[in-house]
Amino acid sequence: MGARAEAAPRPVESDLFATMVKTIKGLAMDGVEKAKSGHPGMPMGAADMAATLWLRFLVHDPADPSWPDRDRFVLSAGHGSMLLYSLLHLSGYDLPMAELQRFRKLHSKTPGHPEVGHTPGVEITTGPLGTGFAAGVGFAYAERLLAQRYNRAGHEIVDHFTYGIVSDGDLMEGVASEAASFAGHQKLGKLVYLYDSNDITIDGGTALAFTENVGARFEAYGWHVQKVDGHDAGAIAKALVAARAEQARPSLIECRTIIAHGAPKKAGTSASHGAPLGKDEVEAAKRAMDWPLEPTFYVPDALRTELAQRKAALAVEHREWVARFERYRAAEPALAQEFELLRRGELPKGTLEAIPTFAPGTAIATRKACAKVISAITKVHPTFVGGSADLAESNGVDFGDRHIHYGVREHGMAGITNGLALHGGVRPVDATFLIFSDFMRGCLRLSALMRLPVIHVFSHDSIWLGEDGPTHQPVEQLMSLRLIPNLWVVRPADARETAGAFRVALERKLGDGPTAILVTRQNLPVFEETRDDIGVGAYTLWDPPGVAAKDLDGILVATGSEVAIAYEAAKRLHERGLEVRVVSMPCWEAFEACDRAYQDDVLPPSVGRRMSVEAGVTLGWQRWCAHQHGLDRFGESAPGADVAKALGFTADAVVEHWLQLP
Amino acid sequence: MGARAEAAPRPVESDLFATMVKTIKGLAMDGVEKAKSGHPGMPMGAADMAATLWLRFLVHDPADPSWPDRDRFVLSAGHGSMLLYSLLHLSGYDLPMAELQRFRKLHSKTPGHPEVGHTPGVEITTGPLGTGFAAGVGFAYAERLLAQRYNRAGHEIVDHFTYGIVSDGDLMEGVASEAASFAGHQKLGKLVYLYDSNDITIDGGTALAFTENVGARFEAYGWHVQKVDGHDAGAIAKALVAARAEQARPSLIECRTIIAHGAPKKAGTSASHGAPLGKDEVEAAKRAMDWPLEPTFYVPDALRTELAQRKAALAVEHREWVARFERYRAAEPALAQEFELLRRGELPKGTLEAIPTFAPGTAIATRKACAKVISAITKVHPTFVGGSADLAESNGVDFGDRHIHYGVREHGMAGITNGLALHGGVRPVDATFLIFSDFMRGCLRLSALMRLPVIHVFSHDSIWLGEDGPTHQPVEQLMSLRLIPNLWVVRPADARETAGAFRVALERKLGDGPTAILVTRQNLPVFEETRDDIGVGAYTLWDPPGVAAKDLDGILVATGSEVAIAYEAAKRLHERGLEVRVVSMPCWEAFEACDRAYQDDVLPPSVGRRMSVEAGVTLGWQRWCAHQHGLDRFGESAPGADVAKALGFTADAVVEHWLQLP
Repeated sequence: MGARAEAAPRPVESDLFATMVKTIKGLAMDGVEKAKSGHPGMPMGAADMAATLWLRFLVHDPADPSWPDRDRFVLSAGHGSMLLYSLLHLSGYDLPMAELQRFRKLHSKTPGHPEVGHTPGVEITTGPLGTGFAAGVGFAYAERLLAQRYNRAGHEIVDHFTYGIVSDGDLMEGVASEAASFAGHQKLGKLVYLYDSNDITIDGGTALAFTENVGARFEAYGWHVQKVDGHDAGAIAKALVAARAEQARPSLIECRTIIAHGAPKKAGTSASHGAPLGKDEVEAAKRAMDWPLEPTFYVPDALRTELAQRKAALAVEHREWVARFERYRAAEPALAQEFELLRRGELPKGTLEAIPTFAPGTAIATRKACAKVISAITKVHPTFVGGSADLAESNGVDFGDRHIHYGVREHGMAGITNGLALHGGVRPVDATFLIFSDFMRGCLRLSALMRLPVIHVFSHDSIWLGEDGPTHQPVEQLMSLRLIPNLWVVRPADARETAGAFRVALERKLGDGPTAILVTRQNLPVFEETRDDIGVGAYTLWDPPGVAAKDLDGILVATGSEVAIAYEAAKRLHERGLEVRVVSMPCWEAFEACDRAYQDDVLPPSVGRRMSVEAGVTLGWQRWCAHQHGLDRFGESAPGADVAKALGFTADAVVEHWLQLP
Repeated sequence: MGARAEAAPRPVESDLFATMVKTIKGLAMDGVEKAKSGHPGMPMGAADMAATLWLRFLVHDPADPSWPDRDRFVLSAGHGSMLLYSLLHLSGYDLPMAELQRFRKLHSKTPGHPEVGHTPGVEITTGPLGTGFAAGVGFAYAERLLAQRYNRAGHEIVDHFTYGIVSDGDLMEGVASEAASFAGHQKLGKLVYLYDSNDITIDGGTALAFTENVGARFEAYGWHVQKVDGHDAGAIAKALVAARAEQARPSLIECRTIIAHGAPKKAGTSASHGAPLGKDEVEAAKRAMDWPLEPTFYVPDALRTELAQRKAALAVEHREWVARFERYRAAEPALAQEFELLRRGELPKGTLEAIPTFAPGTAIATRKACAKVISAITKVHPTFVGGSADLAESNGVDFGDRHIHYGVREHGMAGITNGLALHGGVRPVDATFLIFSDFMRGCLRLSALMRLPVIHVFSHDSIWLGEDGPTHQPVEQLMSLRLIPNLWVVRPADARETAGAFRVALERKLGDGPTAILVTRQNLPVFEETRDDIGVGAYTLWDPPGVAAKDLDGILVATGSEVAIAYEAAKRLHERGLEVRVVSMPCWEAFEACDRAYQDDVLPPSVGRRMSVEAGVTLGWQRWCAHQHGLDRFGESAPGADVAKALGFTADAVVEHWLQLP
């Protein structure tokens, strides 16, 4: 059992505790009231459990939110953001009262739902229910992974808990179910969730739609489940002690609470969920708990004093960890250096250099090239880690002894991957068929919103997958990923561009965003003309010999497996005396980041006759090409080449289309 | 208890049963072998349970797959398609042996995964795991709904079961978890799933990632759970009898099976999951079960004879039902007529006429208009039914006593909705915030692939939702829905166009496809110039007075709430002497279906200076407009009007942008 699990809960006087709870309730009511918008019920109902956790258990340093070994706190029920902002403010994070008073206002530090990177101390962006739950599993997984690699006897530099508050709504979401089953299987003993079980959702009581036995369900997943009165601080503390002591199972502590606890009329009603309580009810609630009506946003001086002392004590804990780390550095200098480098999100020396090169003239599926690249990176990057939703071999991802078997749980995987990235120190990859990016989209979007440097590998990227048919053939997914802000989508034309795709992805950092790499099931030739370095996003693959740009008859712009088709078509057109350039455009976003001169060099504005060639929907290609050779329908079940031929993905069909252009 | 639950299982001689099982295994092996692609393991492992269900329990009429009161069969593990094709062929559906021999070939009736509407007797398109499970819940819900409305004492015209075969992979998926919890809550006693529990997934054993106690989990959901040896036909039959007798709980029968049961070397291994067994192993398997090696695709004559008799007996059951229905018609002519009309997917008389009109000059959020429209339709259409993922009031959907409380389960909801539509007789609607269309996308796509006339209502359709911030503000969702083939996306500009949106949606039938209707949180003016009839998809809302089309300076094309902004901008430009038309384009797909002359009338090719105005990503708008006023970033948390102003969604900002166009 780690030191943190064994530490006694910090003592708290009952008066102080009561004051803390009342203060949180007051801030939540006043914040929502002033904003005329928000969710007062959850912070009031969860104030007891949150105060217990933060005052007595949570190990963190409000003066330095980046301390690597802090406990993580995930507010999965992100709509209760005023609870988190209150805790952060009271604990002494750099979140002044003026920001709480600007709750839900433009450019405040207190947006409607918590946003990581925006507010000091917020670990994760939450709001879409269930996604925080899944990410918390990723935090706990990352902690264990790093502990296994870096801890040495007498040097436990990684030893923290991941706590969270989850709601009825979280537990109804499938993404949480998937992650819960995974966490139970993985025996993530340092994951502890407080379940705010208040029987209320937006539409009314949970009796309308949620009557399952949640505790029994989580026991079936392999969790340690306890049930307590969520307004009994002693019981909550006792349950937290037991949860920390349980090493082999993640813990769910079901806290039976009353939403908007303390509001005389609206407590226990859905009316308190997502709207201000109203002036009268706020006043009545303050009177009932013997709290001053004025000033609003009231924090008693005595509480401030006490919390300042606690902040100082937490800083001491942090300093002790720093001293421990220095002893570790003395004993294990190489490991310590590596740990720090990875914490900064940097790549170990030699990572990019390890990416293999592929010789032209051979033929290899880009998913197989992907597998070789991942395997090579894994050898030099100790926390390059990931897995697949039960399609490891198909997807071309194999992380050896670090491989994560996610099971058939795409959305849970994406949520967990976000948690891995948010924890820091690890560089995560997830993978499935491109078609199932649809299943991951909730958490995929969050990886983009949070600008996490996650790598999403999507294999079987087109109708060329063949026999599995339209249910498995992506058609609209490729373009639909391009629509997501901050996400870079790379669809390499061959093995060389696949190596390049990983280079692009690895060079993106926290604050840039995720990268999706789309690879084929089928073999593709490795071209003479492709590049390992595709940081420019698009480039001229082939020009008809001796033809100046201004004399071109047109341009074919293709991605992925269709580059080979476009190339062949251009050569046939050349034989007919039509001089058509071929542009490979593996990454639109990278091309858009190039300067205009380069863009005009690749796609000269004077050459208006351009046609895209991509086995996906045409909508969107109008951005680059007046004409499109695409697929505005679902696919067919047949061998890949037969499907491609039937749907017009041959060089002949492209030539024919070109000849018919107006 | 209904008659069908009480009926004794049909008797079967053990020799015949064994022959049936061997035949299925042989067909599955040969089909996959000939196709050189497919999944032999599942059909072989599930042959015993499937044969038991189909020979002894399933009530259907292979001569008429459209019999409304047939039992429904959902092969959620759609990769086991050769099992279903074998069953359909042997039962006497119009699926000749030649089609089984063309498994996974272009345009065969036996695609890689089952496709409804393509193969007689296939009830649903499956393959993406978990989605069939969810849809089965919808089938069972529809059965109960129709039974409640149409059955009368002595006239049980609706009384069937929904059976399914589900796999380990299905039960790992969150969409199935959501639907299972819903089904338990709803006490859907006529839903019976056989769980093919074989401990094998693609990556290897379920021990890699799936060690939860599935039975205990389903009991926690409120299901009736039994566990049997999946190769013991007697035990399976006994469990099915008990499952049918259980009226108040859906049933899960965990059948412990061996994947590729009967294959000497590959049984029990993941190698048999998704690839042909190979010639040697097929021959060894046939030898082991004393089966002729040749001919392949062997069906013994004795089995054919017996199955023909069984087919005839099933036809008699169907005829008895027809006679029952005629007695019902005599007793309840109006109900019988209504039942038949709804079965054909037609609208009850007066449905379209019931859609309310909205007077110009008022202001109303389109979600509120949506609520009025739904409420009005519900009054005349007895099985217009649906609900929301815990956001009924927010979304503007209320189906009165038919309202379905889905809980916070967006993906499960979409899957169940597909089942409601597939069952027939009901016209389903689901609803959530537009942002959570991301969570539904797996099943949303299937509604489009199956061309189901589902209505998806998505409210809070832009950054105007305000304070909830970027996690809740859709930016890329609108365009990403437009990418899905067969799905029509309607974003009405005001209450009148909202009425029109429902008209468009209701006129779409099975075979057309689903419709997404996107509505606002915020109030919008009801214009003089908008239309109730938006079947043209786009139209000229306003032209500067006295200006001929050829003299226009340009066109602003807008959708939804941005129409008001574009209109105001055009008027301001007119004051400056710039003559700009305003086009409202609520539905791209409908506009694309219009003839070229109409399209050119609305968007004259001669007027090249066009700018879109839509609070979403610009990618895609290049199709209609050379210039775009959009939002290629995530939103902000603040009151809606403040967000809009900060991000350039005001008439002033549009005017300024227009003036800067090259």
